[in-house]
Amino acid sequence: MTARIAPRTGVAIELARGDALVVIDPEGGQVSDLLAVSASDAGEIISNGRTFDYEETTLLTTGAKLWSNRSNVMLEIEEDTVGVHDFLLTPCSVDTFRHFYPDKPLHRGCFGNLAEALAPYGVVPDAIPVAFNVFMNVPVKPDGRLSVDPPTSKAGDFIRLRAEMDLVIGLTACSAYASNGGSFKPIDYRVEKA
Amino acid sequence: MTARIAPRTGVAIELARGDALVVIDPEGGQVSDLLAVSASDAGEIISNGRTFDYEETTLLTTGAKLWSNRSNVMLEIEEDTVGVHDFLLTPCSVDTFRHFYPDKPLHRGCFGNLAEALAPYGVVPDAIPVAFNVFMNVPVKPDGRLSVDPPTSKAGDFIRLRAEMDLVIGLTACSAYASNGGSFKPIDYRVEKA
Repeated sequence: MTARIAPRTGVAIELARGDALVVIDPEGGQVSDLLAVSASDAGEIISNGRTFDYEETTLLTTGAKLWSNRSNVMLEIEEDTVGVHDFLLTPCSVDTFRHFYPDKPLHRGCFGNLAEALAPYGVVPDAIPVAFNVFMNVPVKPDGRLSVDPPTSKAGDFIRLRAEMDLVIGLTACSAYASNGGSFKPIDYRVEKA
Repeated sequence: MTARIAPRTGVAIELARGDALVVIDPEGGQVSDLLAVSASDAGEIISNGRTFDYEETTLLTTGAKLWSNRSNVMLEIEEDTVGVHDFLLTPCSVDTFRHFYPDKPLHRGCFGNLAEALAPYGVVPDAIPVAFNVFMNVPVKPDGRLSVDPPTSKAGDFIRLRAEMDLVIGLTACSAYASNGGSFKPIDYRVEKA
């Protein structure tokens, strides 16, 4: 059964080891921030740096594993119809809205949505790291300069991630203007039980 | 007065707002992992993701600011004779030695050295994020693939960072083979009081 995350909101999802999570862009052009936390100990959380270390690339797609701060594999990307995701930038927040969109209404962003969704599992805001930003399109130039461009995902595109441990996932429909081409759309997801 | 960090070790350094920390490569070709933590609250710590967000680049040199997980500026790079540093990869650790150097003796690495140096200040190992890896040379290809190459720093090269808040700094002479061109050298540093 496919569930829907309303625009600019987030949810927590429990995965047992072996389950798959399918994250779907139902309308196209929409980012979803994904945080993974060990179900048995909230101190173990997804890490971009450990993932870049072990995967030896910053661009993760089919076959890549996502690693924790304790050097364990949390998820493996089994299928990916897009191939463009970001793992460099932190979740949008009140502070990033103030910085990048001073003329727009403030919003708690993916950071606030993830903090609320994961609080019952013991994740405190200071512990929220860079999320795996599904469908987010952040090209990096040879001189290091980066830009946040509209996602390349089309309606129906998806990524399937297999849980390699028992996990709690924080998942959002992203709230930032630039990340989503200026409009806010829902995100769909489905858990496929092992 | 210049102090020396012995090869494969680390120290903690207290900086008041306005102080500058000069990190020097005395022999050339040696990496130094740098962590910054707020002196008033160990929950506030350096963040590669927030820094990439606000600086809009992954390559940080003179003029760039290093940001915290709470979106505050911790340090500004005032002078930099090298211009090649890494902010993608996590500190080397027992786990990375096991992964990358299965035939070499295990070492606790920069991760273990930083954990010990910062424990008195309330930093727990799970909270250690990607460090700002001074002089570390990690070229990233257009397809995202990265490599850990020898530093380009020569004997006497340095970087000067100005503290924008009261900080505790964890600083190492890095312990990993690839990062340092295969040999382990000291790192020098100097605090210039405001």
